[in-house]
Amino acid sequence: MKTPVTVLGLGAMGTALARAFLAAGHPTTVWNRTPGRSPELDSLGANRAATAADAIAASPLVVVCLLVDDTVRSTLDGLELTGKTVANLTNSTPGQARATAEWVTTAGAQYLDGGIMAVPAMIGGPAAFIFYSGAQEAFEQYSGDLSALASPAYVGTDAGLAALHDIALLSAMYGMFGGAQHALALMAAAEVPAVPFTEQFLVPWLTAMLTSLHGMAGDLDNGPADTAGSNLAMQAAAYENLVTTAEAQGVNPMLLVPMGELLRNAVASGAGDQDLSALVGLLRTPAG
Amino acid sequence: MKTPVTVLGLGAMGTALARAFLAAGHPTTVWNRTPGRSPELDSLGANRAATAADAIAASPLVVVCLLVDDTVRSTLDGLELTGKTVANLTNSTPGQARATAEWVTTAGAQYLDGGIMAVPAMIGGPAAFIFYSGAQEAFEQYSGDLSALASPAYVGTDAGLAALHDIALLSAMYGMFGGAQHALALMAAAEVPAVPFTEQFLVPWLTAMLTSLHGMAGDLDNGPADTAGSNLAMQAAAYENLVTTAEAQGVNPMLLVPMGELLRNAVASGAGDQDLSALVGLLRTPAG
Ligand SMILES: NC(=O)c1ccc[n+]([C@@H]2O[C@H](COP(=O)([O-])OP(=O)(O)OC[C@H]3O[C@@H](n4cnc5c(N)ncnc54)[C@H](OP(=O)(O)O)[C@@H]3O)[C@@H](O)[C@H]2O)c1
Ligand SMILES: NC(=O)c1ccc[n+]([C@@H]2O[C@H](COP(=O)([O-])OP(=O)(O)OC[C@H]3O[C@@H](n4cnc5c(N)ncnc54)[C@H](OP(=O)(O)O)[C@@H]3O)[C@@H](O)[C@H]2O)c1
Repeated sequence: MKTPVTVLGLGAMGTALARAFLAAGHPTTVWNRTPGRSPELDSLGANRAATAADAIAASPLVVVCLLVDDTVRSTLDGLELTGKTVANLTNSTPGQARATAEWVTTAGAQYLDGGIMAVPAMIGGPAAFIFYSGAQEAFEQYSGDLSALASPAYVGTDAGLAALHDIALLSAMYGMFGGAQHALALMAAAEVPAVPFTEQFLVPWLTAMLTSLHGMAGDLDNGPADTAGSNLAMQAAAYENLVTTAEAQGVNPMLLVPMGELLRNAVASGAGDQDLSALVGLLRTPAG
Repeated sequence: MKTPVTVLGLGAMGTALARAFLAAGHPTTVWNRTPGRSPELDSLGANRAATAADAIAASPLVVVCLLVDDTVRSTLDGLELTGKTVANLTNSTPGQARATAEWVTTAGAQYLDGGIMAVPAMIGGPAAFIFYSGAQEAFEQYSGDLSALASPAYVGTDAGLAALHDIALLSAMYGMFGGAQHALALMAAAEVPAVPFTEQFLVPWLTAMLTSLHGMAGDLDNGPADTAGSNLAMQAAAYENLVTTAEAQGVNPMLLVPMGELLRNAVASGAGDQDLSALVGLLRTPAG
């Protein structure tokens, strides 16, 4: 028999996790604060527990996917966790993950923190992955079972490391989404339809520009190589046009403003002949 | 014989453009404010003009690639342009492009405005493209010649449209780069090397997330479809963790702050159950 698993939380993501365990043949117990969420899980064979305590008692591996860290604490507090492995996939900061690791471990369980790099529709599919950190033994014991959800990527025994990696990638994603949303707002203001613009121009352009991140990373690890031919002084000059164009088209430039400030700071600090990797160092100097 | 062409401006980009014309066999005249820039062009057969006026006189097609719009005006002002086609690939706003179209046309030339979607190393290669707008006849006459630089994409007779498309894509790119720079700053602060993180996680993740832009565009053109399972209330809650993690790691959260504000505004305005495409509409409402 496959390892029995429990999923706490049947929001959009918890439901997708439970479905993936069921699809992989795991006896799956589920619990959600508001009863009756995601009724389709019942017909797929899920065992619905009346309380979180009952749900935890049912399986050695307990996957937690609630809204925020606070709700994890309030849900698990005082419950019997001895001998369990808790894999907490709720979005957390590294500091929250370390604190949760501490009290879950004190309660007698092994703790894995996880960061899910997928939207619910991607769970169980090839592009999804989940960062894990914390108890290495627990990871080794359960990584096969956890593979039913997404490819597991273990990043270290410090329980905060999965959250750090997760949050780094989410930060990058929101930057990309914000840029794309701004672009789509500009096109909408000019009554240019979004779908052909996105297919013909936006996605191919961002795909091409993504490759330059390898060069940026290389500069950071090995020191600046040849400049790629796009110096920061030129970029700062062109960037002014992004903000004034937004304003002229009636689009709020709020998402663009800080990068303009960063480019101007870089040029003012004498980095005008360097390229974009120089901005990473500037982000690591204290604000103000 | 191929069409003789002139390139004004031999910065990183103008030099790449001149090289591509030379590689395609065009008699190529070049000029740069500071003499002697890019000496390698001489051995590739470029004809170096002593003045911008001489350079313009040499060819029917004049490609301009200077730093900013002001420098285009100050360089061309008062020179004989009758009968020429001016393709201005200097980064401009739509308003600047329309104004330049006006005075160049008044001076007796046909005007094409262009936005280069490439870094210099991509010029002449398969992924590069250039938006053009303005005089359609001129575009039809010279698009074959201009293909030596990058795939030409003509977006309309309004001279401002190429700049609008260009600036939309640059805005998207800077969003993505800013997000990636923030992610790399977080990893650097934790002493995680940039190259393996970028290869294994950052680029694959952004590549996977890029595909969701198609759904976002579809929502904008056709109204919201099924939510993708990532509601804005959940995202706003998780987003707090991005900012506090940056601060805890000693990384300046400046690039992240406005998206947090936008997510909070969206939730406060009752859009907590919608998805990211709802933010595009919020960007089109007046600031403040
Ligand atoms: N969806 C995604 O794209 C995605 C991707 C990666 C990571 N995540 C992370 O996965 C986690 C869940 O996200 P989701 O999309 O499933 O969110 P969701 O659809 O909004 O569901 C939220 C879940 O949290 C529960 N909950 C909220 N407050 C609670 C409390 N005080 N006590 C107990 N349960 C509580 C809800 O239960 P009720 O039904 O009783 O309200 C529900 O099960 C979040 O940390 C999110 O950041 C989500
Ligand atoms: N490089 C890229 O990745 C890239 C990509 C797309 C678009 N672009 C756009 O292409 C244009 C050129 O960029 P670049 O990378 O070639 O910049 P660059 O390497 O900094 O070169 C700037 C050019 O502008 C000239 N210039 C500056 N001020 C001038 C003035 N007052 N009068 C006459 N000439 C002047 C410079 O001449 P001197 O040698 O005399 O200083 C030089 O030829 C910009 O509008 C940029 O936004 C660049």
